[in-house]
Amino acid sequence: MKIERLAIIGVGLIGGSLARALREKGVVGEVIGCGRGKENLEKAVELGVIDRYTHDIGEAVEGADVVFLAVPLSAMRTTFAAMKGHLSDNAVVTDGGSAKGSVIEDCSSVFGEALPNFVPGHPIAGTENSGVEASFAELYKDRRIILTPVSQTDESAIARVETMWRDCGAEVTRMLVVDHDRILAATSHLPHMLAFALVDMLSRLGDTEDIFRYAAGGFRDFTRIASSNPAMWRDICIANSDAVSTLVDNYAEEMKELASVIRSRDGEKLLALFDNAKQARDRYVDGLNQQAEPLPTE
Amino acid sequence: MKIERLAIIGVGLIGGSLARALREKGVVGEVIGCGRGKENLEKAVELGVIDRYTHDIGEAVEGADVVFLAVPLSAMRTTFAAMKGHLSDNAVVTDGGSAKGSVIEDCSSVFGEALPNFVPGHPIAGTENSGVEASFAELYKDRRIILTPVSQTDESAIARVETMWRDCGAEVTRMLVVDHDRILAATSHLPHMLAFALVDMLSRLGDTEDIFRYAAGGFRDFTRIASSNPAMWRDICIANSDAVSTLVDNYAEEMKELASVIRSRDGEKLLALFDNAKQARDRYVDGLNQQAEPLPTE
Repeated sequence: MKIERLAIIGVGLIGGSLARALREKGVVGEVIGCGRGKENLEKAVELGVIDRYTHDIGEAVEGADVVFLAVPLSAMRTTFAAMKGHLSDNAVVTDGGSAKGSVIEDCSSVFGEALPNFVPGHPIAGTENSGVEASFAELYKDRRIILTPVSQTDESAIARVETMWRDCGAEVTRMLVVDHDRILAATSHLPHMLAFALVDMLSRLGDTEDIFRYAAGGFRDFTRIASSNPAMWRDICIANSDAVSTLVDNYAEEMKELASVIRSRDGEKLLALFDNAKQARDRYVDGLNQQAEPLPTE
Repeated sequence: MKIERLAIIGVGLIGGSLARALREKGVVGEVIGCGRGKENLEKAVELGVIDRYTHDIGEAVEGADVVFLAVPLSAMRTTFAAMKGHLSDNAVVTDGGSAKGSVIEDCSSVFGEALPNFVPGHPIAGTENSGVEASFAELYKDRRIILTPVSQTDESAIARVETMWRDCGAEVTRMLVVDHDRILAATSHLPHMLAFALVDMLSRLGDTEDIFRYAAGGFRDFTRIASSNPAMWRDICIANSDAVSTLVDNYAEEMKELASVIRSRDGEKLLALFDNAKQARDRYVDGLNQQAEPLPTE
C-alpha cells in the first residue's frame, strides 16, 4: 500500500534516510518535512529528500496518512502534544526513538490513553554522522527494526509500519516494550556508559596527556562510542533510567568483585572470567558472520 | 653496531617480528630461536625468521650478544633462572613484557640484584594474531617502544637496545617503571578489564541469545578486546596487580556514582559527564591524526 503523504518530524539522518528509501522504492507520494532549523530543511528540499516543509508540527501532520517521529527522546512529549487535534482519523504514527517505554508514556500522557494508531519502533541503524546531508537510502537495508506495539495498538497500523520498513529493505521484529528497553540497555546503553565513564575518568587523572599519548589502537576502538552525541545520550539515560541504572549498578558490583580478584592475584578465577568472555564474544562474532550482513555503527 | 648473535626466547608474533625487522635491515648475524613448541620453531626456520633453534634456554643464550625475552609474564622468572650462568659477560638482555615492575622483580630475585645489562622494554605493538606465522618485519614501524631502565642499568646496554628498536623503525622513549605500569594500566589494562567484564556479565543474563542478536556494530568494536588471549591477560593482571586493581576499584566507584545520577535523572550532570568525555576523546583522536601514524591494535 503506497503512502500518499508522509510527514517526517525531524529531518536528519534517521528521518531523511527513511524518506529517501521510500522514494527510491516508489512507495511514497508527497513528503512533508518538519523541524526547527530552516537551513537543514531547505537542504532537505534541495536534495529531494522532502517536497516541502513547515516549522509547525500540527500543520505538518494534517492530511498525512503516515507520520514518522525522528525527534530527540526529550522532545517526544511536546511533539505528541503539538500533533493533537491535527491528525487524520486513519493516520498511522510511528517513531525511531532508542527507548520505547518512555515514548509510549509520553504518547499516553498527551492523548489520555494508548493511541491505537501509534506503533512504537526503533530502527537499529545509524552512522556517526547526523543531519539530512548524512542521510542515504540504504541506511536500513538488512538492518533490524524493532516494533513494540502495546495491547491497544491496531493490527492494521502495525502491518502498515511493517510494510513501510520492509520497503526500505529492513527486517522487522516485534518485541515487548520491557524486553526492548532491557535488551537495548545491555547491548547499547550500558556500553556507552562504560566508554563515557572511562574516558571521563582518564581525562581527570593527573597525567592525561601521557595517558592518551601511549594509548594503543585497542583504546581507540574501545572508546569510539564515547564520541557520541552527549545530549542524545542524556536523553536515553533519562528515558530508560530504570533499566540502565540497574545494569550500571550491577556492573559496578562486578567491577568491585573483579578488583578484589586482581588484588588477591587469583589466576584461576581471572582465567575463568576471561575465558568465558572470550568464548561468548567469539560466538557473537561467529553469529554475525553467519548472518553475513554489514553492521550498523549505532 | 651489528648484533652478531641474537637469541629470541619465545618465537611468536613479537619475537618473530623483531628478528624479521633486524634481518631486513641487515643488522643481525645469526638468530637462535628458543621455545617449547617444535612445530612453531621449525616453521620459524622454514620462514627464515631464525637460523636454528633449541628447547634449552641456557644453550640458546650462550654466545649471544643480545637476548630478547618474548615469553609470557608468568614465565619470566623461570626464564631468567634458566639463563643464569649461561650469559656472556657482555650480553645485553631485553624483553617485551606488558608490565615492567614484575619483570624487574623476577630478574632481581634470580640474580640477587638488578642486572646492569638487563634493559626492561615494552613495544606498544601487536595484532590479534599470534605465532611466528603472524610475524612481519613492519610490526614495529612507527610504533612506540617504552624502555624502563633502573638506576643500576648500564647506559651502553640501554643504547644498544635503543639502536636495535630504531633499526626496526620504532620510536623509543624512556619512562620510570611506576609510570609505565600506571599509564598502561589506564590505557590498556583497564579497558581490557571493562570489556571482559561486560561480555562476561551479559553472557550470564537470562536472554543472552537475544542480547547478542540485537547488538549493533558499536558493540562489536567495543568488545573486540574481550577476544584477547585469556592467559596473557591473567598474567598481566597478576603482574600489574596493584595498579590495575586500584583503577578497577576507582572505576567501580565512578560507575556507582553514575548509576545514581541516571536513577535520579539528573540531565545536567549527565550532559556534563558525556560532554567532557566526548571532548577528551575527540582531542585524543585529533592528536593521533596529527601524528599521522597507523595504529597498532594492541
